[in-house]
Amino acid sequence: MKLVRYDAGAGARIGVVKADGIVDLTAARLGWTTMMEIISAGAETLDAIAGIVARDDASVALDGVRLLAPIERPGKYLAIGMNYAKHRDEADKLGIASPQHQLWFNKQTSCLSGPFDAIDPGVSEKLDYEVELAAVIGRAAKRVSEADAPGHVFGYMVANDVSARDWQFHSQTFTMGKSFDTHGPIGPWIVTADEIADPHALGLRCFVNGEKRQDSNTSEMVASLWDQIAYLSTAFTLEPGDLIATGTPHGVGAALEPPIFLKPGDVVRCEIDGIGAIENMVVAPR
Amino acid sequence: MKLVRYDAGAGARIGVVKADGIVDLTAARLGWTTMMEIISAGAETLDAIAGIVARDDASVALDGVRLLAPIERPGKYLAIGMNYAKHRDEADKLGIASPQHQLWFNKQTSCLSGPFDAIDPGVSEKLDYEVELAAVIGRAAKRVSEADAPGHVFGYMVANDVSARDWQFHSQTFTMGKSFDTHGPIGPWIVTADEIADPHALGLRCFVNGEKRQDSNTSEMVASLWDQIAYLSTAFTLEPGDLIATGTPHGVGAALEPPIFLKPGDVVRCEIDGIGAIENMVVAPR
Repeated sequence: MKLVRYDAGAGARIGVVKADGIVDLTAARLGWTTMMEIISAGAETLDAIAGIVARDDASVALDGVRLLAPIERPGKYLAIGMNYAKHRDEADKLGIASPQHQLWFNKQTSCLSGPFDAIDPGVSEKLDYEVELAAVIGRAAKRVSEADAPGHVFGYMVANDVSARDWQFHSQTFTMGKSFDTHGPIGPWIVTADEIADPHALGLRCFVNGEKRQDSNTSEMVASLWDQIAYLSTAFTLEPGDLIATGTPHGVGAALEPPIFLKPGDVVRCEIDGIGAIENMVVAPR
Repeated sequence: MKLVRYDAGAGARIGVVKADGIVDLTAARLGWTTMMEIISAGAETLDAIAGIVARDDASVALDGVRLLAPIERPGKYLAIGMNYAKHRDEADKLGIASPQHQLWFNKQTSCLSGPFDAIDPGVSEKLDYEVELAAVIGRAAKRVSEADAPGHVFGYMVANDVSARDWQFHSQTFTMGKSFDTHGPIGPWIVTADEIADPHALGLRCFVNGEKRQDSNTSEMVASLWDQIAYLSTAFTLEPGDLIATGTPHGVGAALEPPIFLKPGDVVRCEIDGIGAIENMVVAPR
C-alpha cells in the first residue's frame, strides 16, 4: 500500500492511494489521526487498513490535494554519508576521507517537508541535492541482527537530503548544513515494506530542471540497509517512525567540475523505481 | 519555579517543587498533561502556574516519588563540543582539533533519562561523563540575534552528556557514541529562566563516587548560550522544548592520564549552582 498524508483544504488527513485516487482513512474513524499512530500500531492495523482499502472506493482525487510529508515528526531522522562507492570517490575530492565505520549524522526533524514543497536556500550559497532511499522503522529495534533487520522496516520513501555545503563543512559533524528548514523533502508516500521485494535493487535518479544528475541503483550501497539497522541498533534503540536515509550515489552538484549549486527557480526531481517521485522547486531565500 | 515530572506510582505527572514538596499541576486540571504543552503555551501559562503554586500547598513529598526527565521527547537535543578552553586543550590530546566554528552534534532524544536513573554501558568499554548546563527553548527561534536570544529560553537543567568514547570516535560526526539508551540523564527539574540571573556565572561540578572530576564555571564557555542560539537559529528553527547542551569543561575521564572510564557500580553526580544535582549509577550492561 501507498500511505499518504494530504491536505484537501481542511488540514492534514491520512489516506491510501489507489489507482483512481485516495481512500480517506481519517473518515474511516478507526481512531488513527496520525501516521505515527498507524506505524506504531503494528501488523493487525495494516491488515485492517488493507480491508478498508479493498472495500471502499477512492473518494479523493489525487490531483486535487496537497501531499504532505507522509509522516509527522518522528523521533529521529538519521542519514548515512559516503555509502555509495562512486560517491566516496567524488567526496574524496571534496576533502572527506572514506570512513572506517558507517558515518552517521542527523537531519533535524524540523527540516522535514512535503514531496512537492519549496526548498528555501536560507543563508546558504552552496545549496545541493542528494537523492536517497529512506526507510521508516516499524517495530522497535535494539541489537537486531542483519538477518532480523527486514522485520523492523515499515516501509520506504524517496528523500532528498538537501545540503547546504558551506554550512555542512563548518565543522566535522555536518550538523549545521544538513537541516535548514525545508531541506528534508520526503514522500510522495510511504510504500509498505511488503511491496518492495528487495530494497537493494532499486534504480534511483535525480534531475535538475530535467537534466539527469544522479543515476544509480541501491544495489551500489556499501553498507546495506540491513547492515545499517544492525549497526545503529547496537548503540541505541530505533523506534517506530524513525527515518533512515540510506546514502546518496555520485553526481552531487558540489562534486561537478566546476561545482554547480542550486539556485532559485531550479526544480529538483528525485525518483526511485517502485516508490515514486518527489519534486521540489528552489525559491528565493525567505 | 522548579518544574518537575514525577511518578508517584500511577504514571507521569507534572508539578512544581516548593520548599515543603511538590504542588501537583496535573491535579489542577487546567488541561496540561505534558511539560511540552506547558513550554509551548507561553508566558501567560507560567503566570497561571505561579498563581496555583502561590495558593496551593504542596501535596506530594519529594522523597516519596521517582523524578522523571523533566521533559518528554523534545524535537531536538543538540550539544556543542569543545566549548570550554581547558577542555579544548585536553580534547586536543585525544586528537580532536579545536573547531573554527561552533561544533554541534545530536544526542538522539531516545537517550533521555531521569535525573536519578541508571546508566547502561551497553556495548561500550569506554564510558565517560560530561557535566553540562542544558537550556530549554521556550519561544521558537529563527535568525535570532545574540541580544534577543535570552527571550527564547524557557529554563535550565543539569545534563550529563554521557559518552561512549569508543563509539564516539567510530566516525568524525560523534553520532554513534553520544546517544546510547540511558545516556541522556537530565534534571532534576527545569528551573525557569526568570530564576537564573545570568546563565554564564554558574559553578558546575561532576563527581564520581564522591571524587571531584570536573569543577568549572559557565563563565568559561567559549561561545555563550546567546552565541549558540544565534548561530543555530541562523541555519534552522529552534522550537519550543528543544534542548541545548552548552558544552562540558575539562576533567573528562578519557583525558585523564591514564584514562579512567566509568564501570558498573560507579555513581556520577553532576551539579550546577542555582539549579540542583542529578545522580546516576552505572549498572552492569543489560
